[in-house]
Amino acid sequence: MPTPLKHARSFVERHLAGRTADELRARLAPRHTPARPRIPGGTALTPERLHERWQVLNLPARKRDSLADPESLANMEIFARNIENFIGTLKVPVGVAGPLRVNGLFAQGDYYLPLATTEAALVASFDRGARVLTEAGGCTAMLLNEGVSRAPGFAFHSLADAGEFVLWAMQHMDDFRSIAEGTTRHGHLTETRVTVEGNHVYLQLEFTTGAAAGQNMVTIATEAVCEYIRQNSPATPEYSFVEANFSGDKKASVLAFTSVRGKKVTAEVRLPAELVRRRLHTTAEQMERYWRMSALGGVMSGTIGVQGHYANGLAALYLATGQDVACVAESAVGVTRMERIDDGGLYAAVTLPNVIVGTVGGGTHLPSQQACLEVLGLSKPEDAPALAEICAAMALAGELSIIGALSAQEFARAHRRLARGKSVASTAPS
Amino acid sequence: MPTPLKHARSFVERHLAGRTADELRARLAPRHTPARPRIPGGTALTPERLHERWQVLNLPARKRDSLADPESLANMEIFARNIENFIGTLKVPVGVAGPLRVNGLFAQGDYYLPLATTEAALVASFDRGARVLTEAGGCTAMLLNEGVSRAPGFAFHSLADAGEFVLWAMQHMDDFRSIAEGTTRHGHLTETRVTVEGNHVYLQLEFTTGAAAGQNMVTIATEAVCEYIRQNSPATPEYSFVEANFSGDKKASVLAFTSVRGKKVTAEVRLPAELVRRRLHTTAEQMERYWRMSALGGVMSGTIGVQGHYANGLAALYLATGQDVACVAESAVGVTRMERIDDGGLYAAVTLPNVIVGTVGGGTHLPSQQACLEVLGLSKPEDAPALAEICAAMALAGELSIIGALSAQEFARAHRRLARGKSVASTAPS
Amino acid sequence: MPTPLKHARSFVERHLAGRTADELRARLAPRHTPARPRIPGGTALTPERLHERWQVLNLPARKRDSLADPESLANMEIFARNIENFIGTLKVPVGVAGPLRVNGLFAQGDYYLPLATTEAALVASFDRGARVLTEAGGCTAMLLNEGVSRAPGFAFHSLADAGEFVLWAMQHMDDFRSIAEGTTRHGHLTETRVTVEGNHVYLQLEFTTGAAAGQNMVTIATEAVCEYIRQNSPATPEYSFVEANFSGDKKASVLAFTSVRGKKVTAEVRLPAELVRRRLHTTAEQMERYWRMSALGGVMSGTIGVQGHYANGLAALYLATGQDVACVAESAVGVTRMERIDDGGLYAAVTLPNVIVGTVGGGTHLPSQQACLEVLGLSKPEDAPALAEICAAMALAGELSIIGALSAQEFARAHRRLARGKSVASTAPS
Amino acid sequence: MPTPLKHARSFVERHLAGRTADELRARLAPRHTPARPRIPGGTALTPERLHERWQVLNLPARKRDSLADPESLANMEIFARNIENFIGTLKVPVGVAGPLRVNGLFAQGDYYLPLATTEAALVASFDRGARVLTEAGGCTAMLLNEGVSRAPGFAFHSLADAGEFVLWAMQHMDDFRSIAEGTTRHGHLTETRVTVEGNHVYLQLEFTTGAAAGQNMVTIATEAVCEYIRQNSPATPEYSFVEANFSGDKKASVLAFTSVRGKKVTAEVRLPAELVRRRLHTTAEQMERYWRMSALGGVMSGTIGVQGHYANGLAALYLATGQDVACVAESAVGVTRMERIDDGGLYAAVTLPNVIVGTVGGGTHLPSQQACLEVLGLSKPEDAPALAEICAAMALAGELSIIGALSAQEFARAHRRLARGKSVASTAPS
Repeated sequence: MPTPLKHARSFVERHLAGRTADELRARLAPRHTPARPRIPGGTALTPERLHERWQVLNLPARKRDSLADPESLANMEIFARNIENFIGTLKVPVGVAGPLRVNGLFAQGDYYLPLATTEAALVASFDRGARVLTEAGGCTAMLLNEGVSRAPGFAFHSLADAGEFVLWAMQHMDDFRSIAEGTTRHGHLTETRVTVEGNHVYLQLEFTTGAAAGQNMVTIATEAVCEYIRQNSPATPEYSFVEANFSGDKKASVLAFTSVRGKKVTAEVRLPAELVRRRLHTTAEQMERYWRMSALGGVMSGTIGVQGHYANGLAALYLATGQDVACVAESAVGVTRMERIDDGGLYAAVTLPNVIVGTVGGGTHLPSQQACLEVLGLSKPEDAPALAEICAAMALAGELSIIGALSAQEFARAHRRLARGKSVASTAPS
Repeated sequence: MPTPLKHARSFVERHLAGRTADELRARLAPRHTPARPRIPGGTALTPERLHERWQVLNLPARKRDSLADPESLANMEIFARNIENFIGTLKVPVGVAGPLRVNGLFAQGDYYLPLATTEAALVASFDRGARVLTEAGGCTAMLLNEGVSRAPGFAFHSLADAGEFVLWAMQHMDDFRSIAEGTTRHGHLTETRVTVEGNHVYLQLEFTTGAAAGQNMVTIATEAVCEYIRQNSPATPEYSFVEANFSGDKKASVLAFTSVRGKKVTAEVRLPAELVRRRLHTTAEQMERYWRMSALGGVMSGTIGVQGHYANGLAALYLATGQDVACVAESAVGVTRMERIDDGGLYAAVTLPNVIVGTVGGGTHLPSQQACLEVLGLSKPEDAPALAEICAAMALAGELSIIGALSAQEFARAHRRLARGKSVASTAPS
Repeated sequence: MPTPLKHARSFVERHLAGRTADELRARLAPRHTPARPRIPGGTALTPERLHERWQVLNLPARKRDSLADPESLANMEIFARNIENFIGTLKVPVGVAGPLRVNGLFAQGDYYLPLATTEAALVASFDRGARVLTEAGGCTAMLLNEGVSRAPGFAFHSLADAGEFVLWAMQHMDDFRSIAEGTTRHGHLTETRVTVEGNHVYLQLEFTTGAAAGQNMVTIATEAVCEYIRQNSPATPEYSFVEANFSGDKKASVLAFTSVRGKKVTAEVRLPAELVRRRLHTTAEQMERYWRMSALGGVMSGTIGVQGHYANGLAALYLATGQDVACVAESAVGVTRMERIDDGGLYAAVTLPNVIVGTVGGGTHLPSQQACLEVLGLSKPEDAPALAEICAAMALAGELSIIGALSAQEFARAHRRLARGKSVASTAPS
Repeated sequence: MPTPLKHARSFVERHLAGRTADELRARLAPRHTPARPRIPGGTALTPERLHERWQVLNLPARKRDSLADPESLANMEIFARNIENFIGTLKVPVGVAGPLRVNGLFAQGDYYLPLATTEAALVASFDRGARVLTEAGGCTAMLLNEGVSRAPGFAFHSLADAGEFVLWAMQHMDDFRSIAEGTTRHGHLTETRVTVEGNHVYLQLEFTTGAAAGQNMVTIATEAVCEYIRQNSPATPEYSFVEANFSGDKKASVLAFTSVRGKKVTAEVRLPAELVRRRLHTTAEQMERYWRMSALGGVMSGTIGVQGHYANGLAALYLATGQDVACVAESAVGVTRMERIDDGGLYAAVTLPNVIVGTVGGGTHLPSQQACLEVLGLSKPEDAPALAEICAAMALAGELSIIGALSAQEFARAHRRLARGKSVASTAPS
């Protein structure tokens, strides 16, 4: 993360001018004075406990009420399963984009996308992309693969021990499966992979998880396998961990990008030249040029995959539908491709290998999140594959809209409108 | 993203068994039947328009009301600046972790962290980490650098033209600055960098943006520079784009990771052995072992940086305080380091080069988000540097808690408790 | 690849000062004057043809003879299978390091390493590392996996076609194998993997290749499979390529790093404290510190894996033994780990997933290269696995030597000695 | 590096069948029997010492003589500065490709490329590419930037100390420069950059190094700066290292790829449609298709940059001209771009940010290497910039040849000819 020292100097002058080194040191030193009171803990179940918390936080009533409104308090027990130290609810505006026509293996029809965001122009941008796709007859979408993994790590005394363990593990794959699957009704252990690094061994246990995103489920199943290994392996590990940071959980990784994490989905469309002109105000040639320059921009800045702004749509849809929004860190990778085709039209495709969605579990059961799933029409357990395909279709809509705007040089114009507080509904990139 | 064909076969059997190739083809083809109605568009300002939207969506009243509650409708105009096609608000539970003592250049004192999430155990985990840090006298935190960039791309006829442009640009850096700064009160153009790839030239304009996250501001300023270039460069670009996917916007990139995007912050602590034992139920030696194995796990899975779960805390705090939660995709990278020190204690540090936060703009002004900023005590424009330092301190709390749990083998136990719907308040990893 | 414009300006002043833009443009323009004569082509078999080539090159006799010496001319036919437009031979000095004791699955005993290099200190550095390993009783080494792949790419009209192709391919894996293996005596197709990106499909055909490095073999086998696909697939590709840059050939890639390319090998040792002190003049604690800081240095500079200087040893050994030295680009990745252990000793391990070596084919049969294989004692076809293990053991020797020198602050001292033309035999880092 | 356990099993059966776990363990254990004799050490200066070495190696005379030929022995003192434990010289065949017309800022004219390799078809492939470029009027080439860095690391007690050090360093940049430049006649310290990670600080000192590649020079200069820091910094580092694996030395890194290491060069050409057809037997459209699919192949396999086979040409030219061939590990990264242009022609460009070449130092002074520099016509100290531009031009020739062959489906055909021992002069991909 190298910063030129000259540049650092201007930063210092901006922020620290007039402070002596001793003053700065004093600010940075540990302090052992008594701390402010702890938040009265545990899972919130009583109005009294909630009141105690707000006593500690000591905010004006009006501020407090914007979080601790009567409706939220009335539903306290519903929220209690999803949070600790509850003090109320955040209100995030929801807009709807669509309809978005999707011709998928699982998703079939015209979908309205509920998007929760505080970023102006985002809904308008996805709405514009959805309109283009729908007018083209919809996009094709396909779930390509699925799997969630945990990756325990085992440290042995020596490479010889590590080798003996791997030989033994090869002969006990079926045991691993039956033990893992004994902990869960919906999870299946589909493959076990191994990485040896000196006397360290990482396993990668890959599962399918039914309708749930499944992070919890695979952790429990993996711990059972680890316990079996600790009890039975002829070479005993000196220590081991149920997750050795090898599974790509909550972070972008090339390993997950090159395989699958959660669900791998792709979507494509062929747009006629006339539609590109009418709705995106540009040409397929110009969009191909943008794609080429921006793909190399991604390569030269060291991104994982090459894409525009998958994160925008995924964050808004994950949030609205009760998914784990932290998973945007791992999901927002993939490949966007645009090509002009012979008749002046545009071929466009997106591929997202790490979509983490479920229709049960997490926040999916909360009232407003459940309502958003119903806006989508995907609130049943068996809808998880369709929801993943919707993510790809939505990402394609978003890429067409933003690349269209950048190609038509409308991107900055939309930002200027935003800055003046005006509507961006027509050009609408995010 | 290679999948073994054998593995693919089991996927197909699971999902597509019994369907013929022709049936599948039929599902995937474009469809030109009339689409469902479009959402009545634009920025929502009237109850009538809102009503029309719900007519289209056609949900039962109870479901509708969980989004379109009276309070949200009453505040419609407040939300209107942040969203299009508004239909109501999502309710996300907020829990509080802390206090977290921070001894920073900017952040000074004991902070309560408002975290909006639907993931059980998350608040408890950060709360546990905050407690350890606070009992150790607080963590040291430091804002190291700041800057947000836009990266326009220019395509010339030839390398000779590209070279002439670069020579000219070198002589017009001051012009670039005055033009860029003419579009904004708060933004400053601090550096212009250049990348030549054949006849393509990418500029990287780096700005400071005051109290705002500033993505909007830098786009407008950059477009002004692009326009100046198109008008004045002796070599005229054949085409150009205001952003050529080189700035790391909404995605993890090594370039942003090795420099800065938004704010670069670091935090550290030294934990006495006794505190590690008492609060984390493990030893510094065991945590160092975990760090080493997990750092290599990150390296071997191809992550950008090495860290545990920054995304969890950042997503919850960004959401609560009205930041752009899609930026978790770029922010959730960095370096965590843990070392046992001579007296059996633990040194731990986190470094996050891409924290994107502001205390004005985005969703910061919305009522419940503003209340969360006040829970933090950071609702004033000048508080943005402190907010960034809080992000680092919170990330450090989260790393200590999860690595502690994995080292003490409490991680899976907490997940099992979750699965049984029990409290996880004491062990509490996320 | 961003360069600050200010920095670019000093580059320009250094190199281009005093030249006008027009002068520069003139230098850069295509020129259609007659070209210098072409080198008389083809595979060199006659002294006359060689003479013609030297006529064109027109060098003084003394210079010419340093390449076209009598011995090289006498062996012209031997070289002819390995090169075109032959004009003589380059003489590269060879030094020997060792003995290096290796306790491997395949390599067993004390090996002398022939290293061809023009970089002073390199042989001395590896010799020092070999000595440490040998005095510790040798290092353990293990071949972990093997496989070389080709990755043809297929472009279909649509995702539906791509999907149909994949379904068909799943049912014809056995055909792929028999067709591939019909082209080669030594190659076996061990797995076929698939990646779908929109309407593009990449296959990855992984082979074992017997004693040869096998790049040639797998290309021919893959082309046969491609031809079978073009003839038989129900969905016909619009175009296809036998290699779509997905196999990691001649370049470092995370995909190859996370799996295997060529041979994956690992080596480890436990060094007593006394040996670290006596031979490396430092302590295990100091080497662990260096490892930690340098591992994060690798992470923060965006390397693939973390290691010190595998390239130095691999280039010298590949060259000496007639391997394809361009493969250093893909082979010089992996993971080095160092840990102090309880008794003050040091655990050290290296893991190299992409070692590309063979004992037949390439330059292995050339006289001086064959002699180097005999110095190693690995000149038989069945010795390829042992040769790969030697690469790991040598890499471990090199890491111990350089990290020892950096830890003992002898690295710069050795460079200073070099600069004064003195021997570096005792400290000897490279 | 995960391997499916099933796959691992077949590996084990192939290699270890019939061996018991105890037998395997026995092979892997340290052995403390007396080792074979050490190679009589030091820099070889006498025939006696050389004789002793060969006594130890104990090879048949005929084998020995292929390394220790009379000519090599006669030049022993010349080689002695470049190697330790000298036993003779390796003979690597040299072929010539060209002429290659280059219209560069520095390189001007028609160049013959001496290529040392044992890989058949390599010279023919580059020769074919050179012919195409030359017939197009030559390629344009440009040196864009230069710089070699060392990156010392400093560990402080705390972040506060690290911060104080950075503040002090900002005020002593001029001292760093004068101290660094006091150790060298040709090196200049052009910039100092800083990275803070907790209580660790990495500096990155960037130098220009005149005509030499300069790795040695920058190490000595950096050590002098480190010593100054250790003596004068108000915050004293607990430990420090002259290189903390942050400079990209001998390994591909995104940091070096996004900036410069050694010399950054680019080259471009516009090929008329007719020339593409006549010499490459394909069309610009087909080559653009290949480029697009292979660029995404690179992205999806996680390479640094996207390119075809830079390593092949660089390894052969580095070797022939006495460069450090291990640097292929860092040099073989960059960006290749191909675009069909309006008239059916092809635009092609390569950009290599990490070319490490010099015309003095290393092996450049050895007789056959010096002769190769004269074949090129670049043997004078001031020729280093031109040599770097030649590397880019050569890489462009290589990309056109191989992508042409893959597009024309001649790649596998050439490999088949190779396998039958026939000439590949006409199609000639490598």
